[in-house]
Order: sequence, then C-alpha cells, then structure tokens
Amino acid sequence: MSAPEIYFEDLPAGRTIELGTAVVDRDEMLAFNRRFDPQPFHLDEEAGRASMLGGLCASGWFTASLWMRCYVDGVLSRAASLGSPGGDEIAWPAPVYPGDRLDAAMEIVAARTSRSRPEVGLITLTGTLTREDTAVFRARFTGMFGRRRPDGPGVAASDPA
Amino acid sequence: MSAPEIYFEDLPAGRTIELGTAVVDRDEMLAFNRRFDPQPFHLDEEAGRASMLGGLCASGWFTASLWMRCYVDGVLSRAASLGSPGGDEIAWPAPVYPGDRLDAAMEIVAARTSRSRPEVGLITLTGTLTREDTAVFRARFTGMFGRRRPDGPGVAASDPA
Repeated sequence: MSAPEIYFEDLPAGRTIELGTAVVDRDEMLAFNRRFDPQPFHLDEEAGRASMLGGLCASGWFTASLWMRCYVDGVLSRAASLGSPGGDEIAWPAPVYPGDRLDAAMEIVAARTSRSRPEVGLITLTGTLTREDTAVFRARFTGMFGRRRPDGPGVAASDPA
Repeated sequence: MSAPEIYFEDLPAGRTIELGTAVVDRDEMLAFNRRFDPQPFHLDEEAGRASMLGGLCASGWFTASLWMRCYVDGVLSRAASLGSPGGDEIAWPAPVYPGDRLDAAMEIVAARTSRSRPEVGLITLTGTLTREDTAVFRARFTGMFGRRRPDGPGVAASDPA
C-alpha cells in the first residue's frame, strides 16, 4: 500500500467532490437482490411494474454499495481512511433501475478533530447518486481520517451553513 | 406470489421481532468488499490488524445487507411490503469479522397511516445486529406497508416512549 495522499486537512467543510459514474448492471443487481433483498419488486419485472416502484429495481443496499465504490475510487483509495461509525440520514428518494447511469458526488458539511483521539479527524459528508436530474440516493455520515499533522492544533466543529 | 400474511396493522409500535442469525462467510465478505468497498482493512488480514478496526472486517454495507436478508426472511417475504424511503440513523458501533454469528432483530418504534396515501401504513423501525453482547449494526428507517383494511380508520403517529 502506498502512502496516503489525502488526509483530514484536505477535506474541509464546504468542499464538494465529483466521484464519477456508476452504471447499474442488470445481472449484478439481480444477483445482489436475490442474495440480500429478495422481495418480488427486486426480482421480477412484472412484480416491479405492479408495485409502487414502477419496475424491477435495485435494493437500496445495492444502490448504497454502488455509491460506496465511487467514494473509494474517488477518495478513500488515496486517503488515510479510518472507517466510519455511521450517520444520521439515508434516503432512497426514487427507485433505481437496470441500465441507470448514476452520477456520484459528495459534499463535506462539517469537519472537526476528535476530542478523545486528537490524531483523528472527523468529517460529516453527504453522499449522493443522481440519475439525470433525479436524486436516487443520499446518505449523511461521519468519516474518520488520519491527520497530516497529528501534533498540530485541532479543528473545532465547523459548518458552512 | 402468495397473498401476504402481514399487513401494516400487524406491525404496531412497541412490537419487537427476532429475525434469526446471520453468519459472516469469509469468502462472501471478501468478494463483497473487493467489489464495493476495497479499502485495505476490508481486503487484507495484516492491514486490518494494523488499523483501528483490529482485523480484516466487513464493509458496513455488507453488514447492512446481512441484516436486510434477515428482515426479508423474517417479515417482508410474508408481508405487503411497499419499500422504504429511507431513515435517520445508520450505525456500525463495532467491526464485524469473518465467522461472526450475528443475531438480527427489529423493534417497531412508531406506526401511522400515510396522510397523502391512506391505503399505505408507515412504520419506523430500528433494525439491529448483535454479536453476543456487542452491538455491531443499528439502522432506524421507515417501512411502507399495505393496510389490511385500507378503508378503515387511519392511525395517527404513535410512539411508545
């Protein structure tokens, strides 16, 4: 593993990052749905059309996982990532269908140094997936990152709002 | 598809439901991690041990997906499920490792009839995965269900707390 290029200090509140595009592969989606979320509208065209979801569609956890891969490729693979304790929003505002092209992005909405572990920085980020003008996924959660200067001054809670 | 047995009316606030046990298969976990969350501590024993996570561990989205399958098997496969718009908590309070046996459960914390679609009932549930006495996953979100008596009286927001 090469040395990280991206540390907590490189992820300030207010920064937005484009994370590329995920394409929903029908076979992969169906395999995921069968294993983890085998509800009729996630398995079968007809059941999907008959449902409120309007068609055979992705498990929300498949959609979340597609976003995650974009986040890893765009940021975490080059970052001093330390994992995530969780978050306070997850939303699937519209169904995701086979063949969809989903643009992934993130916005850093807050950043602060950990009080208990001063060598760790915590960012709050909102991750999104969008199909043309339709939002299909949104999650707000905390990411933990190593600091470039662990002995430097801390950063208090910040919020651009 | 057979007729549902479980409707909104069968999921009142305060009810808890055991959802069985998920076992973390190492090969399946690694395949998921490689595809969706290829961070070093999700791919490699040594990198896992060197990290704050203490060992090679599951992507949080794999853990969430394991819970989801238990929820489908225990409830949704027999229910008039209409999907989920999202939720307001997702937490991974401790890492999940290969071979872990995770007990799945859910608690219904609120239930009400949709104002805009009176034929739909909305429950707020907290899903959990626990390894012995350690909580490893928690998510609170909304589930939409068909009503057994769509023309009956609605249910206002309720909360046992």
